[in-house]
Amino acid sequence: MIKPITKAEFGVFWPTFADIIQARETYAFDPDMTLEQAYQLWCLSPQRAYAYMDEGEVLGTYYLRPNAMGPSRHISNCGYMVAPEARGKGVARKMCEHSQQIALELGYKAMQFNSVVSTNKVAINLWQTLGFEIIGTIPRAYEHGQLGYVDSYVMYKWLLS
Amino acid sequence: MIKPITKAEFGVFWPTFADIIQARETYAFDPDMTLEQAYQLWCLSPQRAYAYMDEGEVLGTYYLRPNAMGPSRHISNCGYMVAPEARGKGVARKMCEHSQQIALELGYKAMQFNSVVSTNKVAINLWQTLGFEIIGTIPRAYEHGQLGYVDSYVMYKWLLS
Repeated sequence: MIKPITKAEFGVFWPTFADIIQARETYAFDPDMTLEQAYQLWCLSPQRAYAYMDEGEVLGTYYLRPNAMGPSRHISNCGYMVAPEARGKGVARKMCEHSQQIALELGYKAMQFNSVVSTNKVAINLWQTLGFEIIGTIPRAYEHGQLGYVDSYVMYKWLLS
Repeated sequence: MIKPITKAEFGVFWPTFADIIQARETYAFDPDMTLEQAYQLWCLSPQRAYAYMDEGEVLGTYYLRPNAMGPSRHISNCGYMVAPEARGKGVARKMCEHSQQIALELGYKAMQFNSVVSTNKVAINLWQTLGFEIIGTIPRAYEHGQLGYVDSYVMYKWLLS
């Protein structure tokens, strides 16, 4: 169900990706990004990128990359997106669990989300359920499409038991 | 005294840069990085890179870049390095003040340091003196060359008055 994403699958998901970044509610990405730029950013530049498939449909995607280099290379970073019609069905949860397993297999010891928009309560609750903690609050970090400047959170989980 | 850095000036500073990353006490950079990789990372990839010059000597260098894109593009990020023989003389302070001015001129509203190693007390005190606050603590974020895993801090300053 979760497999390395192809360029064709990313292209199928692109309208959702574009809607998400244009809403300016969750991701600190340029909302005017093109498909090619998004593919580079989400699929090529990271270490891994996956698609969540169900009956041939791309319901979600995530990337995994090192969050820093050298003495902090044990910390991974991921981003997740879910298609609107698939929300509330555990797709993000399954992708996050999958990503933690992959991170451990790749030798990472921790996972960090650098900017979880504070108004994105569904995501924050889910990450907390999955063991992530809010370890910092960045004041006025995100210019929300509807609300203006809002805080964002740094969230973190030590993956090794 | 503070001017855009040339490749030749960065080359002159390189032995200090290499010593700093190999010590694994401050920067989350690959300690085995080459001069060319460091030049790309510090001088070409960022938006700006400067040298602090005194009587023809390169006493320090810093870069300035956007910390994120789109709805968070108002936050800048900088890194600073000072040559050992120039420490304790206000070089880092002057570079940080200069960088805040440049950031404002470029339209940024805030500045964020993503990982200030918690054992680097001199830097932490200086950034606090200059108005930065610790807004998060990342547990075991940095594998210190002498101390093993230590925490690092996220530090932040809203630049607009």
